[in-house]
Amino acid sequence: MSPRTAAADVQGKVVAVVDVLRASTTIAVALANGARTVVPFESPDEAITRSRQLERGEVLLAGERRNAAIPGFDLGNSPLEFTTEVVSGRNIFMTTSNGTRALLGLQGAREVVIASYVNLAAVTAMLRAAARADAQILIVCAGEEGHFSLEDAACAGRYVRTITNQKASITIDDGAYACELIDREYGDNIAKIFEDSSHGKALAQAGFGDDLVACAAVDSHPVVPIYQDKQITRLGPDRER
Amino acid sequence: MSPRTAAADVQGKVVAVVDVLRASTTIAVALANGARTVVPFESPDEAITRSRQLERGEVLLAGERRNAAIPGFDLGNSPLEFTTEVVSGRNIFMTTSNGTRALLGLQGAREVVIASYVNLAAVTAMLRAAARADAQILIVCAGEEGHFSLEDAACAGRYVRTITNQKASITIDDGAYACELIDREYGDNIAKIFEDSSHGKALAQAGFGDDLVACAAVDSHPVVPIYQDKQITRLGPDRER
Repeated sequence: MSPRTAAADVQGKVVAVVDVLRASTTIAVALANGARTVVPFESPDEAITRSRQLERGEVLLAGERRNAAIPGFDLGNSPLEFTTEVVSGRNIFMTTSNGTRALLGLQGAREVVIASYVNLAAVTAMLRAAARADAQILIVCAGEEGHFSLEDAACAGRYVRTITNQKASITIDDGAYACELIDREYGDNIAKIFEDSSHGKALAQAGFGDDLVACAAVDSHPVVPIYQDKQITRLGPDRER
Repeated sequence: MSPRTAAADVQGKVVAVVDVLRASTTIAVALANGARTVVPFESPDEAITRSRQLERGEVLLAGERRNAAIPGFDLGNSPLEFTTEVVSGRNIFMTTSNGTRALLGLQGAREVVIASYVNLAAVTAMLRAAARADAQILIVCAGEEGHFSLEDAACAGRYVRTITNQKASITIDDGAYACELIDREYGDNIAKIFEDSSHGKALAQAGFGDDLVACAAVDSHPVVPIYQDKQITRLGPDRER
């Protein structure tokens, strides 16, 4: 098991993508609150162009650039905006600086799941099942504009710890081990991770303090978001293992 | 200040390259023991071709691939081989899997220094002077075949800690902060870092246990190796700050 900050060789692997602040969290919240799909796009223009080919009302445009809303979009990237009233039954076209871009680089993976703190137990159960089936698990930390981000590494470490907890024979690489060290250092104080991280500081300064609380709410939205055929849907009962 | 596992934008920055096991350590030991220059090469073939253009005896060929000696080379990549008797007054053409390759990717840096535990205080003094002069410092972890390696991150963290120790106003990024967490976790038990790291384990299994001891010997070889004009030389008294 190994975490990466860049899209490494994903061929045949089960890949968990982590962008805790905020794309991974927001995607889990949207699906938990009844969104039909979340479709990642590289650029705002691409999302707008595709949305125009569909009927009005079918799609919500969501995302951010440099933490700020995108002109003409329905939603930003705050998990608090993705309420049941707003997203239930809708398709969400989403573009963010880091998280959705990380997803688009994962061609050839056996399975891609979106991981965060809000769906830790649900995604861990899915990854643990994959590990039992001897799948190689790769945790991709979206990071910030290609750079290492503390909160993604810490969250990856939490996954490493919870997955390996019950199967001692799983081998982990140095990166996974280091992430686990970071996770252990903070324990359950996820708010402190965000306080110490540059992206967390930037969000707090930009007035998104409530988002940080939402992103730290472990297991508040127990869904398994699967990225397949260019869209993210909730893993249904028929696909539960 | 920020550590990277890949060559990021180095333009105008003071860059410290860390490949603790073993290239950085071996380069420091070679220069401390009187080698005139260490010249990094991408491939064994390239090193051999260049050495044939020079007089016999002027050059020693050194390096490794997958921790093993290269056929026809004078030396491997073990710091213990680079004794005064062997290297004094000689030029060393060196090619290793990770460390020398990391160096060759650093075009446009303001200054490039080779960092390890054996020259911690010497290189820290140089980097601290650069920080006082408001230079941006980038620590590049060579890693293992492009992957994160625990010992390089831990060593980078030790540099972060020693450099920032006396200048509280230095800002560090998330990567530097995470490396510092790893360093603090281990404290002075560098042997334990190598025990926990995949590369350290591989070297121990390959019979290089004594190398691990040499690589953990903090400040045993107090030189500042500077990479400039395609070769590494010892920072002389005229360039000391």
